[in-house]
Formats: sequence, structure tokens, C-alpha cells
Amino acid sequence: MKALWLDGEPRLRDDVPPPLPAAGEALVKVRLAGVCATDMALMRGYHPLRGVLGHEFVGEITAAPDAPERVGERVVGEINIACGSCRECRAGRKQHCSQRQVAGIRERDGVFAEFVCLPLLNLHPVPNSVPDEAAVFCEPLAAALEVVQQVPVTPNQRALVVGAGRLGQLIARVLRLSGCELAVVARHAQQRALLETVGVRWIDEDAVTDAHADLVVEATGSPSGFALARRAVRPRGSIVLKSTYPGLLEADFSSLVVDEISLIGSRCGPFPAALRLLAQGLVEPTPLIDARFALADGLAALGRAAEPGVMKVLIDCRVST
Amino acid sequence: MKALWLDGEPRLRDDVPPPLPAAGEALVKVRLAGVCATDMALMRGYHPLRGVLGHEFVGEITAAPDAPERVGERVVGEINIACGSCRECRAGRKQHCSQRQVAGIRERDGVFAEFVCLPLLNLHPVPNSVPDEAAVFCEPLAAALEVVQQVPVTPNQRALVVGAGRLGQLIARVLRLSGCELAVVARHAQQRALLETVGVRWIDEDAVTDAHADLVVEATGSPSGFALARRAVRPRGSIVLKSTYPGLLEADFSSLVVDEISLIGSRCGPFPAALRLLAQGLVEPTPLIDARFALADGLAALGRAAEPGVMKVLIDCRVST
Repeated sequence: MKALWLDGEPRLRDDVPPPLPAAGEALVKVRLAGVCATDMALMRGYHPLRGVLGHEFVGEITAAPDAPERVGERVVGEINIACGSCRECRAGRKQHCSQRQVAGIRERDGVFAEFVCLPLLNLHPVPNSVPDEAAVFCEPLAAALEVVQQVPVTPNQRALVVGAGRLGQLIARVLRLSGCELAVVARHAQQRALLETVGVRWIDEDAVTDAHADLVVEATGSPSGFALARRAVRPRGSIVLKSTYPGLLEADFSSLVVDEISLIGSRCGPFPAALRLLAQGLVEPTPLIDARFALADGLAALGRAAEPGVMKVLIDCRVST
Repeated sequence: MKALWLDGEPRLRDDVPPPLPAAGEALVKVRLAGVCATDMALMRGYHPLRGVLGHEFVGEITAAPDAPERVGERVVGEINIACGSCRECRAGRKQHCSQRQVAGIRERDGVFAEFVCLPLLNLHPVPNSVPDEAAVFCEPLAAALEVVQQVPVTPNQRALVVGAGRLGQLIARVLRLSGCELAVVARHAQQRALLETVGVRWIDEDAVTDAHADLVVEATGSPSGFALARRAVRPRGSIVLKSTYPGLLEADFSSLVVDEISLIGSRCGPFPAALRLLAQGLVEPTPLIDARFALADGLAALGRAAEPGVMKVLIDCRVST
């Protein structure tokens, strides 16, 4: 099958053997996939992946030996493949399985391919009312929802999102649902325009008030983004770290103690809730689509996604279309 | 009056003018005061203080122009003096007043003296059942309680305290009340013996299991203590930072994101709860007393407190005794 293969450099291959579903797994024919900042980071060597890149997708189950009744289901899929028996799995934290594979990220082929195999437990049926172009945002929308899963946001709070890229936009769309007083630090004109379409206030970095926000979500993954978040949060406030950082970061931990700040690392989130928001139209992600490429043009898709300020790039993995 | 004065170096003075209570304040005759790691840090220049050192005490109100009925009360005192009108004060976070003075720490004379002035609002009457030797622990015990104020600890959790010094001992005594599975990393024989007297398990640093603790309280203020805490906490667990660190600290923020760790800065805590625990005998701090010096021997007291592994050093500030 065709696939975007990472092995140091990404390349398009035509000769990747289609995966075979193991016990409890399904074979999924990928329809649309989304390019994420993590894909860019993997290409820069953030984590050693040798295999098919990509982890955001919507597809259709074409084989499921252990659940033939699910063949034909249109699905989105959670990317953490848990062992089910380690301490974390037994404690109900499967996303933190100590032995986990992560599709397209860690020791497991991803979704920039014609087919992918995933455990049936990971695959969630997509309601009919949600088109593929919205369903493909389920994984990053779930990641955005993880913020409010970890730090409940109340309507009278002040929240600030630092960074208005792909993930920052989704986080802003989730936070606005709380009724909180929300602002997003956005640099690019297009990022600002997209926030305006959903009535979210954008501000310039220089307009951020010191020690004012109850909650800051850091979605840039840059040391300067963290410094801005730290400056913006009030005493006893929370900073949710939503992006990974290259290398080590230096921080004034004493000031975190004195101001009693909470730093909260945040990763993958709840798919069912993301599907509910999409089905009810409470988050409408399709305006975030920048461009759509065929899988055969996958390298061009990666190139486009790496340009500054570019929103979501989709890859259509249906080779016959 | 006599006082331990810090101005670069600490020195004993006989000529400090006794303070005069301002509106809403009381004059307190200090009975006993306790030496804290923060006093050591101030002597090393952690924060520029020029004035009377010390912030843990029990004393007696000897003048209170606005509340003469309180004269004679035996009291402990909160050390943050809030403006009452800034954003933080209006939000009910007086301990984080942006204009605050902090007795013995920031722009305000402390308690290693015959007398100290504090706002009446800061002074809590001590129940008769609590002797001076226990009441003098109220401020650090409140700081220990702040941990469970910020991160509720449930009986089935695993908690680890890194550091068994003055504050670590009190934190351990608070955490054991939850019924949680508790261990304390303790280096010195005396620290271990004190933990044994309250049935708390101590362990060696090498015996700490990776990614095992739901909650880790870092009470060393050293980079190696933080590294140990980071290693010990499980995914989605919490590290409460209870000590300040010299300079900046380098940390792998990406791993905090991936493992969804919460870092929670923690400072001053609730005095009324601390007094309740003391009055009910649920925390019995007096075995932590290492030595007691007269105010005239205050420099020797500071020297003793600075020795490694030494527990609480008290200063008796009653010059007539």
C-alpha cells in the first residue's frame, strides 16, 4: 500500500505491506488524515519513529475478525495502544500505559497510509451528522478537551490561551463554551481572523496583563510562550502545558512556590466528548482546514503544514479517489 | 529592645526601638520563636531583608488600641500583611497581596525580638490546651496543611515526602492523618527516628520506586530533591513544591506534558486548622525541638539551626526570664 514513511527523512512508499489485524484489532481503511505539530517534531527527531507517520484520522472498518458486526463502521481512533496489564492500565490510566505503543509516534505505524490497524477498543463510531472533514479533528479536539478535564473552567474565570495555531484554535473553541472571559495571544492575521469568526478575542503579546489570568493554556511549545504564560498567570492560578518543548526548559521554581502556581502537563483527551461536541455543532472545526492533498502528494502536505501560521492540512488517503 | 537584626549579616542589637501598633494592629510581646529554613536562606541573601529576622512565634498581646479587649490574649500570627485593596486582596487571596509585607521576610520587622507589631486580623488566639512549645509550630504546620488544602489526599493514595527536615516532618505528620500509604525519604538517623515515633515509614533515596507515587511533596529545595520527586511520581500524579530553590531550575517540561504531571507551588497555609490539630493532639510537634536559646544567644541559635539535620531551634524572646 501507499504510505508516508518516516526513517530519518519522510518519504512516500508504494510498497508498504498492508497491516494485518491482531486479536482484538480492526483493519481501518483511512479516509482523511490530519497533519499535526507532533508530526513536524517527529521529523525533527523529537522521538525516534521508523514507520508510517500520522495519528489524526477518520476511516472505515474493513475487517475485524473478532467483531465482524463492526465492519463498515465509520470511525475515529485513539492512538495509545495499551498493554492492559501494567500498573497504569490496571489503575484505569490506559493513555499512560508504561508499555504503550502510540500510532504514528511510538513503535507503531500511523495513519498516513491506505490502511491502519488499531484495537477495536480504540475505535469510536462517528455519528452520521459529523462529516469526515470534521471527524478528522477528533483527536486534537479531544486533546483540547483534556484541558477542561484536568482544570475545570468556571464561567467567571479569566482564561488566556498562548498560541493560536492548530491546537490553540481548538482549545479556544472549547474554552469559549464555558462562558469564561477568554483571550488568545495570536500573531498571524489568519489566526486572528479565525478567532474572530467564533467571537473569541485575540490580543497581541504586548497587551497581556501581568498576573491577571486564572488559567493560562500554553500551546506554543516555545520557551518564550512559557515565559509569557508565567507572566500572565495570577497567584494560585494554573498554567496548562499543552505542547512539548525542545530540550530542557529553565524556570524560576521559587517564584512558582511563592505565587503557588500550578503547572499541569496535558496530552490526549476524551474522544466521546469530542464526538459529542462535533455532533452537536458546538465546535465547528472545518474553517481551520487550510489545504487538502492526496496521499500521493503527502510530502507536499507535510511541507505545507510546516509553513508558519498554516492551519490544518489534510491528507486524503483514499488512493482510488 | 533586644532583637536579631539582619543587614547582610545577622547581629544582636540592644537598641532597636520597640514597634508602635498602627491602626488595626496589636503590639505582641514575643514568648517563643522558631528558626526556619527561610531564615537561613535570608541570611544567604535569598531576599533582601534589612530588619528583624524571624516569622514563627507565639506571644501575648500587650497593646491593641483598636481592640483593647484583646490585650492579654496568647496568640500566634500570620505573617503576610495585606493591603486589603489590591486585586488579590479583593479576590480573597490576601496571602498573595501584590503589595504585601511579610514579617521577618519582606519589608517588615520579624519576631526574633522582644516585641512585634502585627494586624489584629493576623493574630489567632491559642487554645489553653496548647502550650507555647507547640503553638510556636503553628506557622510551619499551617504551611504543611497547605499541601492538603491544594491537593486533597485520599486514603487509598500513595504519598511520598522528599526530605525529612523541619518542614518535611510536619508534612509527614499531616499526611499520615489521611490514612494514605506514606513514605518519607530521610537521610539522617535522627530524622528517621523522629518519623518512627509517629509510625511513618522512612526510606532511603535508592529505595524510591519509579513512577509509583500519586503525590510527591518536595521539601528539600534542592535540584536533586526535585529530580527524585519527578522520578517518583506516577503519570497524572502531582508534585507539590514546598521549598524555594536557589536560582533557576532546569526541567524536562516535555516529559511533564507527556506524563501529564502537575507541579503545584505551595507556601503559607491555614492557621485555624493548624491550631485545631494542635489542640486536638493530632499533631504533636514538640519532639521536633532540638534546642532552645535565649534571645541574647540568638546568634548561637541561628548557628545551631544551620547545622545539617538539626530540627527545630527555638528562641526564647522573654528577656526578663
